[in-house]
Amino acid sequence: MNYDLRFMHTTETILQVQYYETDKMGVVHHSNYIRYYETARTDYIKSLGISYRQLEESGTAMPIINVSCKYIQPATYDEVLTIKTTLKELPTSRITFYYEIYNQAGKLINEGYTMLAFINQETQRPCRTPDILMERLKPLFSE
Amino acid sequence: MNYDLRFMHTTETILQVQYYETDKMGVVHHSNYIRYYETARTDYIKSLGISYRQLEESGTAMPIINVSCKYIQPATYDEVLTIKTTLKELPTSRITFYYEIYNQAGKLINEGYTMLAFINQETQRPCRTPDILMERLKPLFSE
Amino acid sequence: MNYDLRFMHTTETILQVQYYETDKMGVVHHSNYIRYYETARTDYIKSLGISYRQLEESGTAMPIINVSCKYIQPATYDEVLTIKTTLKELPTSRITFYYEIYNQAGKLINEGYTMLAFINQETQRPCRTPDILMERLKPLFSE
Amino acid sequence: MNYDLRFMHTTETILQVQYYETDKMGVVHHSNYIRYYETARTDYIKSLGISYRQLEESGTAMPIINVSCKYIQPATYDEVLTIKTTLKELPTSRITFYYEIYNQAGKLINEGYTMLAFINQETQRPCRTPDILMERLKPLFSE
Repeated sequence: MNYDLRFMHTTETILQVQYYETDKMGVVHHSNYIRYYETARTDYIKSLGISYRQLEESGTAMPIINVSCKYIQPATYDEVLTIKTTLKELPTSRITFYYEIYNQAGKLINEGYTMLAFINQETQRPCRTPDILMERLKPLFSE
Repeated sequence: MNYDLRFMHTTETILQVQYYETDKMGVVHHSNYIRYYETARTDYIKSLGISYRQLEESGTAMPIINVSCKYIQPATYDEVLTIKTTLKELPTSRITFYYEIYNQAGKLINEGYTMLAFINQETQRPCRTPDILMERLKPLFSE
Repeated sequence: MNYDLRFMHTTETILQVQYYETDKMGVVHHSNYIRYYETARTDYIKSLGISYRQLEESGTAMPIINVSCKYIQPATYDEVLTIKTTLKELPTSRITFYYEIYNQAGKLINEGYTMLAFINQETQRPCRTPDILMERLKPLFSE
Repeated sequence: MNYDLRFMHTTETILQVQYYETDKMGVVHHSNYIRYYETARTDYIKSLGISYRQLEESGTAMPIINVSCKYIQPATYDEVLTIKTTLKELPTSRITFYYEIYNQAGKLINEGYTMLAFINQETQRPCRTPDILMERLKPLFSE
C-alpha cells in the first residue's frame, strides 16, 4: 500500500455519537472525548500500516501520561463527528497526538492532545519508540 | 471476622448514581445496571472473607456467561440505590447471583441475575468452584 | 430510497472493539455488549428510513424494560464484530429486538434481546407503536 | 451542620476501583480518571451543604470546558483510591477544581484539574457563580 506522505501527518476518523455516550445534560459526556481520542489515534497508527495491537504484542505498552482536552461546543446524540489526528514531531520515549473534533456543520467543537510513553513490557521501563513505528514515521517528518 | 450466617445469603451494596451514568433521557443508562451488578457481587464475595481479586490471582477466571436484567423504574442522578445480592443454590462449575435494586423510597426498581463460569486460567477449561469459595459457601446452605 | 423487503427483517452492524471496551481479563467487558445492542438497533431503525432521534423528538421515549444476553465466546481488542438485528413480530406497546454477534471468523459469540416500551413523553404513559414506525414495519411482516 | 472552615478547601473522596474500569493493560483505563474527578467535585459541592443536582435544578448548567490530567502511576483493580479536591480561587463565570489522587500506599498517582462554566439554562448564556454557591465559598477564601 502506498500513502501520500503529504497527507500522512493527519488522519480523519469519522464516528457517530451513541446514545450511551450522552448524559442528562442531553449532550456527549465529557469523559467520552478521551475515548474518541483513543479511537482516533488507533486509526492514525493504522494509517501507517501497523496497528496498536501489533505494537502491544511486540512487547511495547503505551500508557497515557497526559491528557488535555478543551471543550468548545457540545456534541449531540446521533451527530457525525470528524476527528483529525496529527503528530507534530517525531516521538522519542514519548509520543504526543493532537486532535481536533469537528461536528457535521464543520465547526471545531473540541481540541486536545494525549501524551503516551513507550514502556518495555518485560522490564516495565520506558524505552525508545519501537523501530517498527519509527521507520514509518521518519519519512513523514523528513523535510 | 464473624458473619451471622442467617444474613450471609444476602448482601447489601449501597451506591449513588453518578452523572456520567445518566443518559439524555435524564436517567441511568440501562447498561450501567450490569455494572452495578458487578459491584454488588464483588461485595457478596467480600462478605465471605475472600475477594474476587484473590480468586483471580489464585488462577480462576470468572467470565460472565448470562445476564438477565428487568427494568421496572428508572433511577435518577444522585439517587442512592441499594442492591441486594443473593445466591439461591451452591455453585458447580457455574455460579448464579441474583440482584434486586431498590431506590431511596424503598421501591424495587430493577431485578436480574448473572451466571458466571469458573475457568482454570492455565487450561482455559471450565472447572469446579474453587475450594476457597466453596468452603465458605457450604455452611450458608447447610440447613 | 428503496429497501429490499426480504432483507429488511435483519440488519447488519459492523463495529470494531475499542481498547476502552476491554477489561483486565483482556477481552470485551460484558457490559459493553448491551451498548453494542443499542448501536445495532439504532441501525435497524435507520434502515427503515427513520431514526431513533426522530422518534424521540416526535414525543416518544423508548426505555429499555428487559435485557437478556448470552455470552458464548469472548471478543478481543481490535476485532471486527458483526451484529445481526431482527424483529420477530410486529411491536405493540413494546418492541423486542433480537441480536446475534459474530466475530471475524464468522463464529456466533453472543446472542440476546432487548425489549423496549413506547412511552408518551407528555403523559409518561405507555403508548402504542408510533405510526411513523408502524407503517414502515407492517410491510415487512405481511407475508 | 457546621464545617471547620480550615478543612473546607479540600475534600476527600474514597473510591474503589471497579472491574469494569480496568482495561486489557490490567489497570484503570485512563478515561475513568475524568469520571473519578466528577465524583470528587460532586462531593466537594456536597461538603458545602448544597448539591450539584440542586444547582442544576435551580437553572444553572455546569458544562466542562477544560480537562487536564496527568498520569503518574497506574491504579489496579480493587484498589482504594483517595481523591483530594480543592478550589484555589473563588469562581467567576467559571470554576476550576483541582484534584490529587492517592493510592492505598499514600502515593500520588494522578493529578489534574477541570474548569467548568456556569450557564443559565434558560438563556443558554454564561452567567456568574450562582449565589447559593458563592455565599458558601466566600467564607472559605476570606483570609
